[in-house]
Amino acid sequence: MTIKIGVLGATGYTALELLKLLRRHPQAEVIAVTSRENVSPIAEVHPSLTGQYSICCENLKPQDLADRGVQAVFSCLPHTATAAVAPELLRLGMKVVDFGADYRLNNVDVFNKWYNVIHPDPERLPSVPYGLPELFRDAIRGASLVANPGCYPTSAILPIAPLLKHGYVAPDDIIIDSKSGVSGAGRKPSLKNLYPECNEAISAYAVGSHRHTPEIEEVLTNASGKNASVIFTPHLTPMDRGILSTTYLKPLANATQEELLNFLKDFYKDEPFVQVVDALPTTKDVIHTNRCHITVRTVGSRISTISVIDNLIKGAAGAAVQNFNILFGFEETTALL
Amino acid sequence: MTIKIGVLGATGYTALELLKLLRRHPQAEVIAVTSRENVSPIAEVHPSLTGQYSICCENLKPQDLADRGVQAVFSCLPHTATAAVAPELLRLGMKVVDFGADYRLNNVDVFNKWYNVIHPDPERLPSVPYGLPELFRDAIRGASLVANPGCYPTSAILPIAPLLKHGYVAPDDIIIDSKSGVSGAGRKPSLKNLYPECNEAISAYAVGSHRHTPEIEEVLTNASGKNASVIFTPHLTPMDRGILSTTYLKPLANATQEELLNFLKDFYKDEPFVQVVDALPTTKDVIHTNRCHITVRTVGSRISTISVIDNLIKGAAGAAVQNFNILFGFEETTALL
Amino acid sequence: MTIKIGVLGATGYTALELLKLLRRHPQAEVIAVTSRENVSPIAEVHPSLTGQYSICCENLKPQDLADRGVQAVFSCLPHTATAAVAPELLRLGMKVVDFGADYRLNNVDVFNKWYNVIHPDPERLPSVPYGLPELFRDAIRGASLVANPGCYPTSAILPIAPLLKHGYVAPDDIIIDSKSGVSGAGRKPSLKNLYPECNEAISAYAVGSHRHTPEIEEVLTNASGKNASVIFTPHLTPMDRGILSTTYLKPLANATQEELLNFLKDFYKDEPFVQVVDALPTTKDVIHTNRCHITVRTVGSRISTISVIDNLIKGAAGAAVQNFNILFGFEETTALL
Amino acid sequence: MTIKIGVLGATGYTALELLKLLRRHPQAEVIAVTSRENVSPIAEVHPSLTGQYSICCENLKPQDLADRGVQAVFSCLPHTATAAVAPELLRLGMKVVDFGADYRLNNVDVFNKWYNVIHPDPERLPSVPYGLPELFRDAIRGASLVANPGCYPTSAILPIAPLLKHGYVAPDDIIIDSKSGVSGAGRKPSLKNLYPECNEAISAYAVGSHRHTPEIEEVLTNASGKNASVIFTPHLTPMDRGILSTTYLKPLANATQEELLNFLKDFYKDEPFVQVVDALPTTKDVIHTNRCHITVRTVGSRISTISVIDNLIKGAAGAAVQNFNILFGFEETTALL
Repeated sequence: MTIKIGVLGATGYTALELLKLLRRHPQAEVIAVTSRENVSPIAEVHPSLTGQYSICCENLKPQDLADRGVQAVFSCLPHTATAAVAPELLRLGMKVVDFGADYRLNNVDVFNKWYNVIHPDPERLPSVPYGLPELFRDAIRGASLVANPGCYPTSAILPIAPLLKHGYVAPDDIIIDSKSGVSGAGRKPSLKNLYPECNEAISAYAVGSHRHTPEIEEVLTNASGKNASVIFTPHLTPMDRGILSTTYLKPLANATQEELLNFLKDFYKDEPFVQVVDALPTTKDVIHTNRCHITVRTVGSRISTISVIDNLIKGAAGAAVQNFNILFGFEETTALL
Repeated sequence: MTIKIGVLGATGYTALELLKLLRRHPQAEVIAVTSRENVSPIAEVHPSLTGQYSICCENLKPQDLADRGVQAVFSCLPHTATAAVAPELLRLGMKVVDFGADYRLNNVDVFNKWYNVIHPDPERLPSVPYGLPELFRDAIRGASLVANPGCYPTSAILPIAPLLKHGYVAPDDIIIDSKSGVSGAGRKPSLKNLYPECNEAISAYAVGSHRHTPEIEEVLTNASGKNASVIFTPHLTPMDRGILSTTYLKPLANATQEELLNFLKDFYKDEPFVQVVDALPTTKDVIHTNRCHITVRTVGSRISTISVIDNLIKGAAGAAVQNFNILFGFEETTALL
Repeated sequence: MTIKIGVLGATGYTALELLKLLRRHPQAEVIAVTSRENVSPIAEVHPSLTGQYSICCENLKPQDLADRGVQAVFSCLPHTATAAVAPELLRLGMKVVDFGADYRLNNVDVFNKWYNVIHPDPERLPSVPYGLPELFRDAIRGASLVANPGCYPTSAILPIAPLLKHGYVAPDDIIIDSKSGVSGAGRKPSLKNLYPECNEAISAYAVGSHRHTPEIEEVLTNASGKNASVIFTPHLTPMDRGILSTTYLKPLANATQEELLNFLKDFYKDEPFVQVVDALPTTKDVIHTNRCHITVRTVGSRISTISVIDNLIKGAAGAAVQNFNILFGFEETTALL
Repeated sequence: MTIKIGVLGATGYTALELLKLLRRHPQAEVIAVTSRENVSPIAEVHPSLTGQYSICCENLKPQDLADRGVQAVFSCLPHTATAAVAPELLRLGMKVVDFGADYRLNNVDVFNKWYNVIHPDPERLPSVPYGLPELFRDAIRGASLVANPGCYPTSAILPIAPLLKHGYVAPDDIIIDSKSGVSGAGRKPSLKNLYPECNEAISAYAVGSHRHTPEIEEVLTNASGKNASVIFTPHLTPMDRGILSTTYLKPLANATQEELLNFLKDFYKDEPFVQVVDALPTTKDVIHTNRCHITVRTVGSRISTISVIDNLIKGAAGAAVQNFNILFGFEETTALL
């Protein structure tokens, strides 16, 4: 069985990674890639796809996709743009994985406040599963629409959620200091992501105001049953890709570092894409893979977790393929090893 | 008046920066550079000094330096090596700025424990000023030996100390998350500082065990009169130079962000090398300078400071020249603008 | 059918890439990885293999490999080390792909002169095929031992050889200016490949003396039937991986740029891993792939080709897997798309 | 004596470097910085100038500058914009150093063709000196307007011109392969200079069509008296700054490498900013300085020179200050050591 696939908003970095991954997927065939402005061959937009894809970008509507037989849509559109077309895509029988934030939050008021918009499809929010299979696999399995997690949230939720749920750490004093490669800022030219501005430079940004903050809080709360409150500081780091998140958590129990390590190892022992490691990880251990490496340390009066992912793969395109595999009943690791 | 200068351990990166700065100092003349292993012209060791210095590295003893008329010694030797020669250098009438950790701590037991050695010159520790002029200028002025601060401590103490002393933040819940360029790891080849290991990679290291932890704690305690306890996590960042420190502090007073910003601006208003800025700083704003840029934010239940320095200049060679200027009564900014 | 594989010298960067590629190969099973000094789990040597490989490095002899049933050996050993064991590996029935230079040249005198050694297995040289399938596929097919090409030669031979053979360019005035990422310098720590030495720096090295010079000359001569003479200048470029080679060739015919482009497109039209492109390529188009992108320009009195590869993949591990696929009759692109 | 200075087009990278250098110049006072669009404090445009400059960008006309007493203008405007105002600046008695290309060529037809415009001030071209003091110091001394050289030309002309003039190399077969940091592409956001496009990537650009080609040809011809013909290929290299130019020259005489090295050392022996070195240079030896390091090698049938500069300093702002010093009779090295 081969699934016919459409990719919405195919000119950015996450779409590029997605197209590379799908090239390796024996049950996936990309038959449409869309752009509102660009009608070039996708291999001109992304020269690294030369010889890999011969299709061109098109400005397509949901009905066009349906007419061509598209069964699965990956949407890399900016926020609110997916929610504007998702209802029709679903009505036409397509399954949808949304890379954006439109369906990540359950609470539409939180969405409207943080994204400063009116959500176009608010009723659907509470029922869309959060596409982090390691925590919500069952909900994803039966869904038609999956909200692919944000990159920072993936890096932070995977280490914290189990500790929080088990009662090892307090929900109201969670500090997350994250460092991301520049591809996370997207492919639209602006002064802040010019090479000579980013290179040889590290900076904090969106301090206290990054939109992934409520996402982390809500998902941690849902996953643990505790009302999580998060301080989150992202940093722009001079590298293409990769996120490292260092957390500072307040211990509730008197657990040793070894106990915490073993707990996490056991929690993720059956997960193909989460490795709990003894040594301190570097982003280089996981870039260009769908894996998350996690370790934990007790430091003075705090518990620190350190976790690394590739923001474009486990933090975006890889997780999307993982969700696609679940949605269609394929082996979850297909195209991801 | 020209001061004759000797540089001990001249083959590393901090010595290189020092030699570049001293080239611009109208009252400094470097007449000796030492190395235990290398007898090459210093311009071969550091090709960027070609045409700037014609002297060669030599293996010199304190008496050799005295015989040549050296009046000021900058020591870039590894820890305990300076303390092994400092007493004789001082006895022979030279003034000494130590780049290393030997005289930074007052408490010799803390030193011996964290550095896992027996300090060769323990009696002197309590009387050596910590060479951070912004906080200890008066003590430096009359000294013969100055302990140049560590790079991470400089980046963290400058923003925290005033807030702590004034009672804005609690002394027992100080979290410092620092990101440093690779030059901080020195110039000795090892797997961990190879280009293909560091590039496109960020990692935490020495979590809970970095030797700058007790230094930050002791200096914050001395500067504030409060018993500071610190959690410090350094990260190796893919860039040559620069440190950004993000702190997470617990507020004691109910101060607004604006009040905190104004307080810090006022505190440092006369300091030529500390700029309290409104916008979020990047390391790129200060690399290749002796300046520290600081800002402060209130985020949820925390106060965050964000500060940036060049680890090799304000974090090492620049601070050393600043201390040299104070020791010899020169304008403090000489060679540093 | 699954082939049991041994990897000699598994601690370096090319071996790491090989192990990643073989993980995706359905007919390959790595059962032994060797090191003379290291007996750690391979996933500790290369943390990015965590969860992917559970075997440990061992110091194994050819007979040990045979005893375990190894059928194919990839050798990432330093020069002359492979030639010291290859005869026995072959005698024991294993097929061998050598990443090193030992069997690349036909002329042992040239080898001994440029590598400043006595070749341990000189008689075999003339009969070992050069493992560039695009030019020597038939010879590889029937072989037991293949000499995997050098990274720079791959980048330069692919564009030049067809032009030379067809008489478009002169054999005696070939200039190749190549730029390589730092991983090409290997994983052994030395001052020259430290991060702070390589970063923000480009330099020429081995000018007039790089050992890939005679390799390029001999292979171009063999491929074209003309006596090629080459000036080759490699440059160390601040990036992990990738080679871009710019050539300056002397035209013999009066061909237009369009004719040259079409000629090359036609020449490589059936090759899955060589793309002749119209636009100027960047290394980023091909890193992390087994592909080579080539273009050609007429500039004043010269013809310039510009070609890019990933030095670790098409320039090493990918080409090795391609040769392995040919040796064992697998689809040539297996594990390489 | 202090010279009052205006900087036109102050928002880019070369202007930033200029402002940093002038901060160290005891006889320079910057009293006006202009921008057509930006009226922010210059320290907001360039945060690294915080605390160094308090003036704001303004949209000023030549008469405004004259009214304020500006005596020297550095123009960092795009091409033809300087030539549109230079006549009036000169008429008002100001001296002008132009960072752009407007007055670099003597031949207006060549200018109009390569820049695809009509030059606004064509009569002046033949009389404006080319601001490379090492070759044209006398002409600069008496001038009112100086054409600051292009960055690539500086790196290529300094090594080639003496060899060409002396007859060591042929004028009609000059190949220049240059590698530049990304700051050379300016500070205007575009896809091609985004961090994730440039990082981990090297590419050739403007092959056969770069506007520095006629500049190099004309200046080499003027400097040597021989009709120089040049093939020039620039490459975008993943680093902030620095240019390395590798040349491939055809020998006319039978000179040894040692003779060529000694000839160049002698030629530049009195120049403070040109160092002829024995070892192969790296851009890192000269970035953040006004120096050019050059070496020469004989390789097969060619002579290769390898030269390095900082494109923003010796290739722009530093050369401009050097010219300013000559124009006003200051010590040529002022603010540049």
